[in-house]
Amino acid sequence: MKTRAELEQELAALRQEAARLRADAAGSPAPRISPLAPPRFPDLPVIAGVRFAAAEAAVKYRGRRDVMLAAIDEGSTIAGVFTRSATRAEPVLWCQRNLARLHSAGPKRGGFGILVNSGNANAFTGAAGIEAVRKTASAAAEALDCSPEHVFVASTGVIGEPLPAERVVAKIGELVDGLSPSAAREAAEAIMTTDTFPKGARAEVDLGGRKVRIAGFAKGSGMIEPDMATMLVFIFTDAAIEAPVLQDMLARGTGTSFNCITVDSDTSTSDTLILAATGRSGIAPIRSTEDGRSALFMDGLSAVMTDLAHQVVRDGEGATKFVTVNVTGAESERSARVIGKAIANSPLVKTAIAGEDPNWGRVVMAVGKSGEPADRDRMSIRFGGVTVAENGRVASGYREELGAAVMKAQEIEITVDLGVGDGTATVWTCDLTHGYITINADYRS
Amino acid sequence: MKTRAELEQELAALRQEAARLRADAAGSPAPRISPLAPPRFPDLPVIAGVRFAAAEAAVKYRGRRDVMLAAIDEGSTIAGVFTRSATRAEPVLWCQRNLARLHSAGPKRGGFGILVNSGNANAFTGAAGIEAVRKTASAAAEALDCSPEHVFVASTGVIGEPLPAERVVAKIGELVDGLSPSAAREAAEAIMTTDTFPKGARAEVDLGGRKVRIAGFAKGSGMIEPDMATMLVFIFTDAAIEAPVLQDMLARGTGTSFNCITVDSDTSTSDTLILAATGRSGIAPIRSTEDGRSALFMDGLSAVMTDLAHQVVRDGEGATKFVTVNVTGAESERSARVIGKAIANSPLVKTAIAGEDPNWGRVVMAVGKSGEPADRDRMSIRFGGVTVAENGRVASGYREELGAAVMKAQEIEITVDLGVGDGTATVWTCDLTHGYITINADYRS
Repeated sequence: MKTRAELEQELAALRQEAARLRADAAGSPAPRISPLAPPRFPDLPVIAGVRFAAAEAAVKYRGRRDVMLAAIDEGSTIAGVFTRSATRAEPVLWCQRNLARLHSAGPKRGGFGILVNSGNANAFTGAAGIEAVRKTASAAAEALDCSPEHVFVASTGVIGEPLPAERVVAKIGELVDGLSPSAAREAAEAIMTTDTFPKGARAEVDLGGRKVRIAGFAKGSGMIEPDMATMLVFIFTDAAIEAPVLQDMLARGTGTSFNCITVDSDTSTSDTLILAATGRSGIAPIRSTEDGRSALFMDGLSAVMTDLAHQVVRDGEGATKFVTVNVTGAESERSARVIGKAIANSPLVKTAIAGEDPNWGRVVMAVGKSGEPADRDRMSIRFGGVTVAENGRVASGYREELGAAVMKAQEIEITVDLGVGDGTATVWTCDLTHGYITINADYRS
Repeated sequence: MKTRAELEQELAALRQEAARLRADAAGSPAPRISPLAPPRFPDLPVIAGVRFAAAEAAVKYRGRRDVMLAAIDEGSTIAGVFTRSATRAEPVLWCQRNLARLHSAGPKRGGFGILVNSGNANAFTGAAGIEAVRKTASAAAEALDCSPEHVFVASTGVIGEPLPAERVVAKIGELVDGLSPSAAREAAEAIMTTDTFPKGARAEVDLGGRKVRIAGFAKGSGMIEPDMATMLVFIFTDAAIEAPVLQDMLARGTGTSFNCITVDSDTSTSDTLILAATGRSGIAPIRSTEDGRSALFMDGLSAVMTDLAHQVVRDGEGATKFVTVNVTGAESERSARVIGKAIANSPLVKTAIAGEDPNWGRVVMAVGKSGEPADRDRMSIRFGGVTVAENGRVASGYREELGAAVMKAQEIEITVDLGVGDGTATVWTCDLTHGYITINADYRS
């Protein structure tokens, strides 16, 4: 039963929401930024050999930039990872084919391009979708004087509507003319859909006295957005790293960053992550993961990827809490990740967090449903620094007030030890609130 | 962008919710029954050989019945299926052990009992939980004059709090004294937790001129309830069916009924389904699935199980729409069910339905994320009778108004054909609304 004060608080929230809806209906949406957003977009370093431009193509949105082009100098190496969805979008298939050819047959003449639009995912669009990819990639290739196979494309937005390719093509000239090494922020903004803030991250790595830089940006308000399928991530470095090593690093980094976040368990048809290494820092190329510099670079890359992944969670639809789920003592690393995801994806765990309820019984339930080995009677659960359950029952000395105090914070850590092995994993998520329902129950209209 | 009319509609809804919250805070919760509830509890037939009683034990709730006892005559056969959760509750483990012994070693002397309490799940309660099961089962066995191994127990409610067994034990005498063949409805009400209506179903089957009856009841407001873990189902028949055949029928029936529903993807620690056959109809016992009457009985049993499963979905937390997801053309039946569940569990599909948005792109996404074989370019999607997508793109002639009209209904059918094989499955679910968040973000407090 709610107290009068709790009721009043809820009513205030309803009134606030109504105010926002009124503003939306009046055509002047109040700027809403996630309460979990970082204070500002970072100063991304210039990456020699990479230039950006953004423009207004009016694919769907009006009055904002919605296409971006990244031009990458000849001689760079490229790595990519993509959604495993069985209904992946045409741009994803195009990128996968290009990357496979590039890695098997080597580069053709010229540099590379990454062309991205927001507002339309060009997914489930049949033959027209393939044609739209060809047209836009060819136009960019011509303007950049490279092979169309060197142009990677990504589209993010509504699924199932034909992409007006001609609007993108019409802006290629303007984009190429406007290319600048310092326009990464504009590019990051152009690819936003329901994102409430642009997401950037940077790192500098000292490779035996030679400094290399990493700069990346991302869009995404969940593993997937409300029918605006997609998380897109683009990372650039001036390090020199051969393609197979670069691809290996990217794949490994993905496993502990983007593959460890979830907002709503829904997987995009268009998730795309591309990493380009220009080599323009002048370091001797890294040709093997055995190279001592490889681990140093990997640390910097991981930091950038994890930072961007966290920012996607922090912009999770309706999110008010940033949640870290640590799983230890699992049978294996894989098992720990499955259990972590089961907890992080449970609507009951996520709503308990939204309600600031230290409801550890729901964590027990989520572990149980994961299907992974767990010893009920050796399990322990901690909320922040407070042990709430151990040896298969509530911890002696635990009082509800202790757990409740932890749940008041904006950042919450849940740690589960399974007591069956050495496997560990960390998964990040956000809470499930009325905001998520409001955004998603009335998105496309 | 919302129109003024849509905005006003939403505000009216907010005001309605505020009114309800106000009533709750004033201590007079308005009776709220799911809008999807059937008009009334069915007249369950008396099953000869089974009697019920319910009582107020004040395990947690006050002013309502919260324990029920079913007494089943000697000579009956019993079948059961249970949650596969790795953190299943002690009552589940007890039932599984008893059932295994019963099926391997045969019955002991005396009849059977089913003793159930609501308000506390006796899950994750350590040694105290085992002791509570032993105490309550032994007390019931003594009063019913049967072996404790013939007493099945189930508990539904909060996880992690010790069950006050003595309160249940104190009511055993009253329960046994009050046993009546016609008290199934009282029993169905006593096991409710967040359910908004009691759930019953019946069937009569003609087995070559001899009529047998099936009566069952269930509780559950989802595959799991908000930390009130559990769906419980009890079904009784006066047919005579040998235990192995009965168990086989129950397992098969579960596959296409309870295992095909989902409210929120969370699996209970306590799901329990028990079927008892008293044989008191006087028919010659069914000893094999080859017996021609077996299929006839199975039809009736399936109807009861499917009816109860649908009622659980209809009482799904916050539900305003009953959704049937048909999957055809999948590689296998298993694959069809996995795809159906991926659609039915997708928060984005469920919120689109809540918002009456014919957002078929989210269905495409859910198929893609299932990990099952699908041919994007041969897939088709129908909302009700309207084909929205075919051959990997929007259907020619489809207009948004057609889909939108279908989504206005209270019962919605989504049909997806994968175009890769003969596998079919049907899964039932409900929408995901603000009501779900309200119920679950503030349940235990």
